[in-house]
Amino acid sequence: MDKVNYGLYLVTNTNICPREKLLSVTESAIKGGVTLVQLREKDISTREFFAEASELKKLCKHYDVPLLINDRIDIALAVDADGIHIGQSDMPLKVSRRILGSNKIIGLSAGNVNQAVEALNDGADYLGVGAVFPTSTKKDASNVGIDMLKQVRKSVDIPIVGIGGINPDNISQLYGSGIEGVAVVSCIMGSENPYAVSKQLSQMVKEL
Amino acid sequence: MDKVNYGLYLVTNTNICPREKLLSVTESAIKGGVTLVQLREKDISTREFFAEASELKKLCKHYDVPLLINDRIDIALAVDADGIHIGQSDMPLKVSRRILGSNKIIGLSAGNVNQAVEALNDGADYLGVGAVFPTSTKKDASNVGIDMLKQVRKSVDIPIVGIGGINPDNISQLYGSGIEGVAVVSCIMGSENPYAVSKQLSQMVKEL
Repeated sequence: MDKVNYGLYLVTNTNICPREKLLSVTESAIKGGVTLVQLREKDISTREFFAEASELKKLCKHYDVPLLINDRIDIALAVDADGIHIGQSDMPLKVSRRILGSNKIIGLSAGNVNQAVEALNDGADYLGVGAVFPTSTKKDASNVGIDMLKQVRKSVDIPIVGIGGINPDNISQLYGSGIEGVAVVSCIMGSENPYAVSKQLSQMVKEL
Repeated sequence: MDKVNYGLYLVTNTNICPREKLLSVTESAIKGGVTLVQLREKDISTREFFAEASELKKLCKHYDVPLLINDRIDIALAVDADGIHIGQSDMPLKVSRRILGSNKIIGLSAGNVNQAVEALNDGADYLGVGAVFPTSTKKDASNVGIDMLKQVRKSVDIPIVGIGGINPDNISQLYGSGIEGVAVVSCIMGSENPYAVSKQLSQMVKEL
């Protein structure tokens, strides 16, 4: 695995972006500067998830952007994705690593320092930490704020991606926080112009 | 893989059987004569599914009864289950085989002769054919009846398990049909005495 650029990390959401527009919106976002894509699907059949992931894998491969699958290792294996992103209620990290092997990226959501340190010890490649700001797309995510992000940054030396309500209006609050990137959902997936928003954000993440 | 006994095939259902009773009901059913167990879960987190499958794997291994996982290859790999059962809206069979390898059982649900022949050609180890009788546990399953079961039997030479509304009162209608076993859900999972029902059915399946 080449060194991964976590700078501008897109998490898909087909509640915000209709499924038939997923590929075109993602492609515009990649052209705008997205460096990593995570496909997240809930309430979809495995057959449909596989089909969608196959299409997205082709797209990402074409642009040489890594594709991660949220939660579902079976889908990641089926389409030979670059890795997975898992949460605290998904497959345990060590089990995931045993199934996926050492060449795939495994990222973990961490909401506090304990979870972050445990993930580091269990072999996570990166952490998603949030919700940094209040978010509408994951209502069960508690808002951990920027202070927590900084505490996690001091505690672990693997890449950290901030997530949760981040957009061009508030990203400057994260400047200098020492994180490797930001993960965004709504502000790209729900945009009329995903290319422009991605372009703008891809410039701004250089200040992190 | 030793030769599998498909005679009395239990499909779990935690809508009918509360989750906290799943292990004890399954153990009683195995003691009564269940020869194969399929863990089927929907609307559960991957972490919970993994934990439940791990417990069930231990139980099945203790009694030397194969455990199959419905749909989720990631769970099957994580607990080293004996295989999977997939439907027409799950992972394609050929992709499943590539991920799982040749030593694991892969069963497919088939609702007509075309699906059965395709599954045979794609390398299915057995077929689940139904719904043989009307069933309340899978409302979207169309009732294919006994005639269809017999047509499928003539068309393929891999093991066939009839499924859908089968119970001690109607199983005799399947005698002589040439299928290898019956899969049951409600009549065991919802029974006050899963041991007794399994004992009764395990005798009756000898007449198939």
